[in-house]
Amino acid sequence: MTTVAPLPTVADLQAAARRLQGIARLTPLLESEALNALVGGRVLLKAEALQRTGSFKFRGAYNAISQIEASAVVAYSSGNHAQGVAAAARALGKAATIVMPADAPAIKLESTQALGAEIRLYDRQRESREAIGAELARRTGAALVKPYDDPRIIAGQGTAGLELAEQAAGLGAAPDAALIPCGGGGLIAGCGLALGALCPGIEVFAVEPLGFDDTRRSLAAGERVTNPPDGASICDALLAPTPGELTFALNRRQLAGGLAVGDQDVRLAMAFAFRHLKLVIEPGGAVGLAALLAGGFDARGRTVAVLLSGGNVDPAQFVAALGPSGPA
Amino acid sequence: MTTVAPLPTVADLQAAARRLQGIARLTPLLESEALNALVGGRVLLKAEALQRTGSFKFRGAYNAISQIEASAVVAYSSGNHAQGVAAAARALGKAATIVMPADAPAIKLESTQALGAEIRLYDRQRESREAIGAELARRTGAALVKPYDDPRIIAGQGTAGLELAEQAAGLGAAPDAALIPCGGGGLIAGCGLALGALCPGIEVFAVEPLGFDDTRRSLAAGERVTNPPDGASICDALLAPTPGELTFALNRRQLAGGLAVGDQDVRLAMAFAFRHLKLVIEPGGAVGLAALLAGGFDARGRTVAVLLSGGNVDPAQFVAALGPSGPA
Repeated sequence: MTTVAPLPTVADLQAAARRLQGIARLTPLLESEALNALVGGRVLLKAEALQRTGSFKFRGAYNAISQIEASAVVAYSSGNHAQGVAAAARALGKAATIVMPADAPAIKLESTQALGAEIRLYDRQRESREAIGAELARRTGAALVKPYDDPRIIAGQGTAGLELAEQAAGLGAAPDAALIPCGGGGLIAGCGLALGALCPGIEVFAVEPLGFDDTRRSLAAGERVTNPPDGASICDALLAPTPGELTFALNRRQLAGGLAVGDQDVRLAMAFAFRHLKLVIEPGGAVGLAALLAGGFDARGRTVAVLLSGGNVDPAQFVAALGPSGPA
Repeated sequence: MTTVAPLPTVADLQAAARRLQGIARLTPLLESEALNALVGGRVLLKAEALQRTGSFKFRGAYNAISQIEASAVVAYSSGNHAQGVAAAARALGKAATIVMPADAPAIKLESTQALGAEIRLYDRQRESREAIGAELARRTGAALVKPYDDPRIIAGQGTAGLELAEQAAGLGAAPDAALIPCGGGGLIAGCGLALGALCPGIEVFAVEPLGFDDTRRSLAAGERVTNPPDGASICDALLAPTPGELTFALNRRQLAGGLAVGDQDVRLAMAFAFRHLKLVIEPGGAVGLAALLAGGFDARGRTVAVLLSGGNVDPAQFVAALGPSGPA
């Protein structure tokens, strides 16, 4: 099978970093004495929840849209890509229409609208967002900004990995491993490219929700497999049915493997971030931390980078994480 | 009236910054498009909730304890200074005993203990923490680390102001005003010193809880006044009865005035920080943002620095802020 677009390179990531300079935020790389003590290693937390629009998605969206000539863009997204595209389009003076599932978190729907985008709701069980997006693009002349399977998107998301590597070096730390949330795989494809180039010997792991661990299983199978249709997870940002074509082409050569975490471990990680990091992390953003805290990854004696990819969570969902299952 | 210790200078702040280099965190200066749009100005948010121990207090504690010869320290605190002293003492290889109110937030009591300090509880209504702290110091030979009325503490807290000024300059921003939480006044005395030196023409305002606005009223009266004894506020970090002697000596010449905010405005600010900043901010840490959002300070057309001083809040208190009064 041949791919329809060339795979991005480290040079593409560096070009994206230049485009994003002074536009995206340089998010902090945080450390927690409590977390280090708990896992017996050194954990470096890249706080992408503090990125513009509350997730890393702004990076890829801006990098892609700044290279698009059309005066309008269309995207489909459960919410974080939606906000990233809406904010990037507004910053670049373009109109944006976003196709979003009707059951997306209210905070994501409202924030996307507040950023000036037009919303087209769809039914996740009965309609195809890809088809709706393509039809809208065809009808209006707007350019489609895919959520992950686009080299410009992958390169933009990878700038988080470039920063992480530079910030770790600035602390005198050399990460042995990185735990990165994985939905369609754009973030980890870009970050894997960056970390592989800048952190020799690093092992990069995809972390996914149980039932949506298509990348983990695809890596094991050596080809793209699809999730069973009956899965459920609180990680609304990570529910892609199958790895992207471009993203998997990168991930299959860059990743050391995959990990899957359950909802309860995700809630405990969100509560840990509340208590010890003072960060609001959404379910999909907390899977790496969840894998670490639940013992799915042994960090003893190692330096582990964890990417906290977003913080767009409804109050009720957050409160549930702080509940009886949360910190005492 | 003469003061018992010399007032700190900008040189003392710079010396403190050197001591804290690589020890305290350089906390990020954040910006929110939503907040800027809402207030019609530019707001720069110094996120000290991301500091070690979850508040700015680590700065002053470390700066003071690193200059103490005794092998043990004693402190009294409602919780943030407690954690700051406990963490700094541990980092410097000293024993710490902390006198804390029995009704301090559980998260603050537990975190202080987890940092290796011994806790001595007292009854806020019937006992004097100053007397207990002084007696413990006398009996054990430990050095007393006061929460704010000490030039080394003020200088340490002021390093947050030095960073803020440098980070604002790095963004090409010149703050017209700063809104800084005020309990005993150590943080704002140090930050006022730094900002006055580095941001010519800036107006620095103390923000306090309603009923605990002793610094606001003292500034107006020209002398230190005491809060009425029957006040109540969710801002547990800001309940000092009267301004410190050293801190007021600085604040009376450095501050442009004071603002007072009510509990409900504080909860709305915490909910705003949850939704738009992805930060967990405790009540006392949110008063500056509360003043801004409640319209107590007109930011239109201005650049305003807001210091978010801490994030140590119990889940129940946080959940209450996200409740019916919180974001939709």
